Amino acid sequence: MGALRLHSLYLFVSTSTRVASAPICSSFLHHNSKVRLAPAKPYASVSRDLCTPVTSEADAPENVEKHPKSGQEGFITPRSYDFNAWYADIIANAELADYGPVRGTMVIRPYGYAIWEAIQDYLNAKIKETGHKNVYFPQFIPYSFIEKEASHVEGFSPELAVVTIGGGKELEEKLVVRPTSETIVNYKFTQWIRSYRDLPIMINQWANVTRWEMRTKPFIRTLEFLWQEGHTAHATLEEAEEEALKMMEVYKNFAYEQAAIPVIPGRKSRRETFAGALRTYTIEAMMGDRKALQAGTSHNLGQNFSRAFGTQFTDENGQRQYVWQTSWAISTRFVGAIIMTHGDDAGLMLPPKIAPIQVVIVPIWKKDDEKTGVLNAAYLVEKVLKTAGIKVELDASEQRTPGWKFNFWEMKGVPLRIEIGPRDVSSGTLVISRRDIPGKLGKVFGISMDSSILEAYVKDKLDEIQSSLLEKATSFRNSNIVDVSSYDELKEAISLGKWARGPWSASDAEELRVKEETGATIRRSCNICKIILTVVVGPFASMMI
Amino acid sequence: MGALRLHSLYLFVSTSTRVASAPICSSFLHHNSKVRLAPAKPYASVSRDLCTPVTSEADAPENVEKHPKSGQEGFITPRSYDFNAWYADIIANAELADYGPVRGTMVIRPYGYAIWEAIQDYLNAKIKETGHKNVYFPQFIPYSFIEKEASHVEGFSPELAVVTIGGGKELEEKLVVRPTSETIVNYKFTQWIRSYRDLPIMINQWANVTRWEMRTKPFIRTLEFLWQEGHTAHATLEEAEEEALKMMEVYKNFAYEQAAIPVIPGRKSRRETFAGALRTYTIEAMMGDRKALQAGTSHNLGQNFSRAFGTQFTDENGQRQYVWQTSWAISTRFVGAIIMTHGDDAGLMLPPKIAPIQVVIVPIWKKDDEKTGVLNAAYLVEKVLKTAGIKVELDASEQRTPGWKFNFWEMKGVPLRIEIGPRDVSSGTLVISRRDIPGKLGKVFGISMDSSILEAYVKDKLDEIQSSLLEKATSFRNSNIVDVSSYDELKEAISLGKWARGPWSASDAEELRVKEETGATIRRSCNICKIILTVVVGPFASMMI
Repeated sequence: MGALRLHSLYLFVSTSTRVASAPICSSFLHHNSKVRLAPAKPYASVSRDLCTPVTSEADAPENVEKHPKSGQEGFITPRSYDFNAWYADIIANAELADYGPVRGTMVIRPYGYAIWEAIQDYLNAKIKETGHKNVYFPQFIPYSFIEKEASHVEGFSPELAVVTIGGGKELEEKLVVRPTSETIVNYKFTQWIRSYRDLPIMINQWANVTRWEMRTKPFIRTLEFLWQEGHTAHATLEEAEEEALKMMEVYKNFAYEQAAIPVIPGRKSRRETFAGALRTYTIEAMMGDRKALQAGTSHNLGQNFSRAFGTQFTDENGQRQYVWQTSWAISTRFVGAIIMTHGDDAGLMLPPKIAPIQVVIVPIWKKDDEKTGVLNAAYLVEKVLKTAGIKVELDASEQRTPGWKFNFWEMKGVPLRIEIGPRDVSSGTLVISRRDIPGKLGKVFGISMDSSILEAYVKDKLDEIQSSLLEKATSFRNSNIVDVSSYDELKEAISLGKWARGPWSASDAEELRVKEETGATIRRSCNICKIILTVVVGPFASMMI
Repeated sequence: MGALRLHSLYLFVSTSTRVASAPICSSFLHHNSKVRLAPAKPYASVSRDLCTPVTSEADAPENVEKHPKSGQEGFITPRSYDFNAWYADIIANAELADYGPVRGTMVIRPYGYAIWEAIQDYLNAKIKETGHKNVYFPQFIPYSFIEKEASHVEGFSPELAVVTIGGGKELEEKLVVRPTSETIVNYKFTQWIRSYRDLPIMINQWANVTRWEMRTKPFIRTLEFLWQEGHTAHATLEEAEEEALKMMEVYKNFAYEQAAIPVIPGRKSRRETFAGALRTYTIEAMMGDRKALQAGTSHNLGQNFSRAFGTQFTDENGQRQYVWQTSWAISTRFVGAIIMTHGDDAGLMLPPKIAPIQVVIVPIWKKDDEKTGVLNAAYLVEKVLKTAGIKVELDASEQRTPGWKFNFWEMKGVPLRIEIGPRDVSSGTLVISRRDIPGKLGKVFGISMDSSILEAYVKDKLDEIQSSLLEKATSFRNSNIVDVSSYDELKEAISLGKWARGPWSASDAEELRVKEETGATIRRSCNICKIILTVVVGPFASMMI
């Protein structure tokens, strides 16, 4: 396939971990200036939207037989046996979510919702810190709005849910249940914006959105999902670009620091740009099966929507100008990213900063005369940790054995477990086990129950686990990215299920051809730095499970 | 109308303010055992749902001519001239909300949304403290679900929004956009609940809901609104009743302590009970025009939904039993309640605990050489207050005069204003004005800028304003409730635009007759305490604007 113009390598400094601390643009212009090409089964194929839930269903791939124990209560399919079945088993057993009555919909259960709340708490604060204010727009959008921006209607019309009846009557104009809010936001911006003094407008909303996806998977791609969507309007292209990149930085920091996911920020190729955007930036995450997941998105919308809706302002010279806009989003899909990045055969593994329960206490006793002492000590430890601001759960139920509880809370991904038995009580100590280090290696005996020592020890361990999960995910990611400099090398990397990284300056048609031949899609590129750099994921065909 | 059986007065101890501290049931059984009958134009007519947004549009009543200045930028119609126009003017000028493109929908703007966030923050914490966990259910409900509970479908079917097209295709089963979630919650409860060990289940969600209302009004009654809806399942009727009353207590405390609204908690008459509930409790608030507003609702659903959906559990004796349920909600309507309780001709007046901005600082200077000193002092004061956890805004813009700013921030309802001029800077003092006491009476000069003195002073004043708003609203409410002991007295009270309070034990048919003759509706009753007590609001007919 000689038509593919693969540049010779140029100015390549590689390690992707540098992305963590460097600002996005410079990071992908300088530090990460390698083309990235990545592996099998992308979770997002054509990323024409803020955070497209475009992934495979939780069904097992056709070539994998169900595990013989599959479906047994409490059983989790080993991850290596069948990644998708493993994912579905974790969601069911850890009670993260459940299926809704309508195909493709999901009920988010308390434990799953608490993870989403941790994501919300952090992002909501950061979104406000960066100058945005929360609002709420109606979810019903007149059908005519969607049609105003040409590529927007093309991208979204196949997956709209449409209300045709209201109050028992056929409606004169059909209403779209919002798939995203650029159109209705512009409708209001035309009324709110008069002059340059009204700019920038920087708003955000936490809302549900609906996209009629054919293939769905809990958290990753559902008919209805929850997200925040930011919308801004600016006087210049430069300001809009700065804003789009700033929010990418917020998302990237969130991924690294809170979710311990070493995402790769970058720009989408033209083919994969959002329906209506000038430039689409995303953070791409490598899941445990080496698939790429688009985990957050930020668009420089240019003037596409402002021209379609007539969103203008009078500039300082009295001239009417179209505003420059951005939009950006992170959704409940991120909960799926956390599961698939850190989980193992024992179940969920949660980064302490995101975990609804950071420490579980399991009291252990055999004889009745031991019970009171053990329970009293357990309640005391619970109180000490709670007072220290640690999210702690004491599992004092008597219907289950300590062994059952160990497995259960490991499966729920709780970072630390404290065990307290009669001997611990008499020595004033306890046992602490790390979720991320299995067996004896992760277990430390004889930690003092003294409140100041215990508090410091637990906080320290939680920090250690947080860093350790990020390191592990980073080294897994790095070991699965292959530098390539020819199309043959790219094909080989993809066939090994890895991500390929290399220079790229091919056409849209050639990009499509690579996708068809290898299943790979471009994940990250940079064409504002003159060379076009890319990440490609594949093979696409077999991925669509 | 001798058919109306008005009991003789019995065990009546009146003062309604006692409701604030007494538990709901005892409060309306003992302290408030008077029948309440209330005045003109109710905001809720037939309250068959959690928090029915059932009120009049913001249009002026037919008999009121528009104020000559109406529509002029910044003009607020005097409250006494036309209450509805006043309400609409405040919403527009204070930028609380704006109309959506679809009839009856509303865009909640940053300032309005910040009030809703204050409501959310308090209630979310209380809902968790009382043992509930947040979840999220899909908003699309199969039409067949709504039909399962007979009175539920009767109550809701006239106002459903229905999705008939998904992904470009006609759907086999129509989907209802949730008007409330009892049905879909029960669908899942049937799967989650097996034995008494799974009970109680206590969940809550923050969500949008849709009801195809014909007459709408921003915040009060919109096609789509935001709310929290709690849903619980219990093993016994007593537990469900206790839960329903507990959440009423949470709502009542919120209204009194945060929103400074002296609501009257009570039970709805049978005619006004929620579609599907055994008992409906509400908190009723008196607005500035003496209309009643249903501001929060809690239902003991009995076994109505569990029988319709087959939601059963195995009790301790191995018997299958239907669960007993509750549901309860507070919505964005509460923002409307705050506006209409405290606002005056100058605009919005916000209780400090709900106010997005508690203190605004207006620096004042004439000559350029004064500017730096004044601004520096203003920034310092801003920092002191911010550090103290006070929500403060410094209005340092140079495009507007101090006088304009005074009016603007008064209109926005900010509880305290700090003025700093050149003379204040040299004396190290500042001027503080209270929003709730107009003119010189509410203005204090020479408050020290010393951080500890200033902080204590401001916090003290905010507390004073909070209490003062509650007292004012309580005394207004009390002066507009008339004790009646005959139907003639009731009619007279209603014709004066007041609420009537008296004993009541009439039939549903008679209740309807009263409504037709006087326009009054029952707002609060108690029939578990043997006497049926009521609040009636009217006249209904002329109210429907």
